[in-house]
Amino acid sequence: MSDAIQPILIAGRWQPSRDASSSFQAEDPSTGEAFGPAFPRSGAADVEAALAAASAVVEELAAAEPERIAAFLEGYATRIEARTEALAALAQRETGLSASGRFVPGEIPRTYGQLRQAAKAVREYSWTLPTIDTANGLRSHLAPLGKPVLVFGPNNFPFAFNGIAGSDFASSIAARNPLIAKAHPSHPNTSKALAELAHEALLEAGLPAAAVQMLYQFPRELGLELAGDKRLGAIGFTGSRPAGLALKAASDAAGVLFYAELSSINPVYLLPGVLAEQGEALAAEFFSSCTMGAGQFCTNPGVVVVIDGTHSDAFVAAAQAKFAAGAPGVMLSGGGLQHVQQAVAGLRQAGAELLAGGQAAGPGHRFQPTLLSVDGARFLANAEALQGEAFGPVSLLVRVADLAQAKAITRAFEGNLTGTIYRAADGSDDAAWAEIAPLLRARVGRLIANRMPTGVAVSAAQNHGGPYPSTSHPGFTSVGIPGAVRRFAALHSYDQVPDALLPVELRDGNPGGVWRVLDGQWSTADVGALA
Amino acid sequence: MSDAIQPILIAGRWQPSRDASSSFQAEDPSTGEAFGPAFPRSGAADVEAALAAASAVVEELAAAEPERIAAFLEGYATRIEARTEALAALAQRETGLSASGRFVPGEIPRTYGQLRQAAKAVREYSWTLPTIDTANGLRSHLAPLGKPVLVFGPNNFPFAFNGIAGSDFASSIAARNPLIAKAHPSHPNTSKALAELAHEALLEAGLPAAAVQMLYQFPRELGLELAGDKRLGAIGFTGSRPAGLALKAASDAAGVLFYAELSSINPVYLLPGVLAEQGEALAAEFFSSCTMGAGQFCTNPGVVVVIDGTHSDAFVAAAQAKFAAGAPGVMLSGGGLQHVQQAVAGLRQAGAELLAGGQAAGPGHRFQPTLLSVDGARFLANAEALQGEAFGPVSLLVRVADLAQAKAITRAFEGNLTGTIYRAADGSDDAAWAEIAPLLRARVGRLIANRMPTGVAVSAAQNHGGPYPSTSHPGFTSVGIPGAVRRFAALHSYDQVPDALLPVELRDGNPGGVWRVLDGQWSTADVGALA
Repeated sequence: MSDAIQPILIAGRWQPSRDASSSFQAEDPSTGEAFGPAFPRSGAADVEAALAAASAVVEELAAAEPERIAAFLEGYATRIEARTEALAALAQRETGLSASGRFVPGEIPRTYGQLRQAAKAVREYSWTLPTIDTANGLRSHLAPLGKPVLVFGPNNFPFAFNGIAGSDFASSIAARNPLIAKAHPSHPNTSKALAELAHEALLEAGLPAAAVQMLYQFPRELGLELAGDKRLGAIGFTGSRPAGLALKAASDAAGVLFYAELSSINPVYLLPGVLAEQGEALAAEFFSSCTMGAGQFCTNPGVVVVIDGTHSDAFVAAAQAKFAAGAPGVMLSGGGLQHVQQAVAGLRQAGAELLAGGQAAGPGHRFQPTLLSVDGARFLANAEALQGEAFGPVSLLVRVADLAQAKAITRAFEGNLTGTIYRAADGSDDAAWAEIAPLLRARVGRLIANRMPTGVAVSAAQNHGGPYPSTSHPGFTSVGIPGAVRRFAALHSYDQVPDALLPVELRDGNPGGVWRVLDGQWSTADVGALA
Repeated sequence: MSDAIQPILIAGRWQPSRDASSSFQAEDPSTGEAFGPAFPRSGAADVEAALAAASAVVEELAAAEPERIAAFLEGYATRIEARTEALAALAQRETGLSASGRFVPGEIPRTYGQLRQAAKAVREYSWTLPTIDTANGLRSHLAPLGKPVLVFGPNNFPFAFNGIAGSDFASSIAARNPLIAKAHPSHPNTSKALAELAHEALLEAGLPAAAVQMLYQFPRELGLELAGDKRLGAIGFTGSRPAGLALKAASDAAGVLFYAELSSINPVYLLPGVLAEQGEALAAEFFSSCTMGAGQFCTNPGVVVVIDGTHSDAFVAAAQAKFAAGAPGVMLSGGGLQHVQQAVAGLRQAGAELLAGGQAAGPGHRFQPTLLSVDGARFLANAEALQGEAFGPVSLLVRVADLAQAKAITRAFEGNLTGTIYRAADGSDDAAWAEIAPLLRARVGRLIANRMPTGVAVSAAQNHGGPYPSTSHPGFTSVGIPGAVRRFAALHSYDQVPDALLPVELRDGNPGGVWRVLDGQWSTADVGALA
């Protein structure tokens, strides 16, 4: 460990921690060895400084030209793209995820692409839903929150969900809210490298430098105190359910918006017809989706429902063989390994039978591909415990007796991010789809046909969200522009305000051709042009 | 009091309360006399029956044809319109609000107009924001919540915000969520008459009869229990801050969405130039807005800021004279009268000086038009207490020394529904507007120029909402279609789902000409038509 503790980013300057209680290093989870510089665990003074700095530029950032915001997002994207290889190598070392398999094509392009989509949404004002009612002299749009946003990044996406670079970051900045990023302690070196690029891009774009702060870590109690601070406008959180619910309680009590992505087991239904058509291929597809990245995805297929029969037996046998033969996956951290072990033990205790895997392995923090099984009746008898998320290369087969039991199970599912139904090409599963899909639809954010749930495109039509408890608000997505931006926005209406005093996209003239709801119709016209 | 206790509406039938602990009658607040039939205070069995009935039709209502939903909303609107005079008379008697001045032109047309706008939004799918991304095979829209909605109506709008007829009602039904209406006990006869019309219209439209339940009253503890029941999807609440915050805590803990409109003092700034131009007229306008309906409006001008000077002295004198000469207004209930008395006492204790009124009066529950005053320094020294809402014909003048103090006061304001700035026609206030408006803008939902805040048009560009604590989510309005509908919706994304299995407004063909985001552009075209 080098002696110097790394600085934190506050108020536009890299500065030493005021009151770090201790420090930590990154760890290579494939070996368990710590490496690199020491990063501070901040205390109350750092947290207060970050919040004060962000609060101080709320007005200035809200008044910033959208063009500058877009330039910042694009300048940052360009810098990330230019450093793809180096960033990927850095992240691989501290996450155990593959640079060439996961980051170089994959998460890093997704991240800079997402920043560019946010820049486009800023230029087009598409996130603001401009609405004009000439008869009543009213105009409205979505606008900055008027307070800073706090983002907690998760361990599993060091780029695309990083508090300093991911979707919550892009969304908060696009809506012109200053931001405090809480980097995840499992990838501090990647976060530092990203923050340096963000800082450079911010200065180049001429935005207030305190638009972005970053802290590496602080104690849980301080996090709860910060989440409950009325000076905050909103929080974006991606992580575990217990941590998320504690933060939610604190922020709810203070009237701070809390957008959380908490946990999800992503039920997958393999209907009888499609199992007959391509059961072997589905076993391979399922195994690949469940074990990719050691299964550490929010959309990992954690539950697979099959209806008892010859073809489901064959599928289960094929899946079992694949899981049994699979190499252990490197978990993001020792803590993550502990969690998945506990979760698997919990599922077994709740009545699931172990078909393959189930053990930790070395070197470092590894876990075997793990397949469990339970019958439908037992699942229904203990539905809550059997829906515990095992964040890793783990899935639970639920073998139901018939379609009626499949429906009963669907009704017992909590809110999830995704729900998937594979159906046969020959139409033989259509009746079963018609029975199950409406029930599943109401319980998930994204309904998928014939494709595993992992892989989340950054799209305007995406929903990476879902009913509680998968997220804290079923109306919003955390991935997908412009929808994700709207989470961090306040609705602003203008009543009888003269044209010259209105925000540019609400004025009579619309030289930029912004899409607006003009007297009930979407239009790019000037007000009065069609009269 | 008649002997029979009125039935409640559950599961499509008017049925006797299972476990009413007691009953209550309406009261004429202009005389203080109770009248009419007895209404039940429901117990746990009624509440459970209502929730179970609503839950049982979630799937059926979600699958209902939008045309049936629209037909119900319109059939209900037609019935209300046909009974305008009788409903207005009923409401006048139990609220003290004027049938001819407030209901016949005013709130009743607003209510059936709102139902018709909701029907139009259903037919046009405008609330669903349909979005299609052909490159990624993703399509999304807003859809029913998958659970019932509970609506608490307030005392002050027996029609336009009634749980069984108002904006939350129209919004919940438009989004195809079953509803439990908690009528306000200050106007049970009006609520009963409305529920009868709703019930008729529901049966006529062929929707599940349990789409709508209504209870008149239940104890506070039961309300908290219900709010925290995970079988609920969302709550719409309009009422007092203490009641709202208690319910919010209960629903937050259960992951139930809580949309509250809590309280607001609606700051009004009268800049020096406009006071010079029309100070006398503004005093009349202010007095009228503040005392209309005995000031019992969420958007009542509860705080007026003037900058010291000759013209502000004249304005204050004119306003004082008007308030002193005004007749006491009939409060909605004895409880309301008590609250406004306590609030005025609280403002005086916090340092406000009484300029006019301040007393209760008879017969019944009346309160004098009341004007208080405080200087800017004292306001800043005690800003929290001096922002207490006095729900009645009451306003606090804040006399600030200069523009800098006006800005400091603006920064001290909590979130409010509205903020108003009056500015001179001759441009002499433009500099002051430029200083104050951005600060006020960030703290209010609707920014108004040169018009008092009372009077809320049902418009797509309306925002009857604002930053916490005026409401619980600054991104949504409770008035204005289609925005208000989106509160009670879940985002649904479809991933690789075949065309025939998609909701109608997401299919390739678009025979209804629905406005959709098609590959980044708003369009009414079929998918593929422009390729």
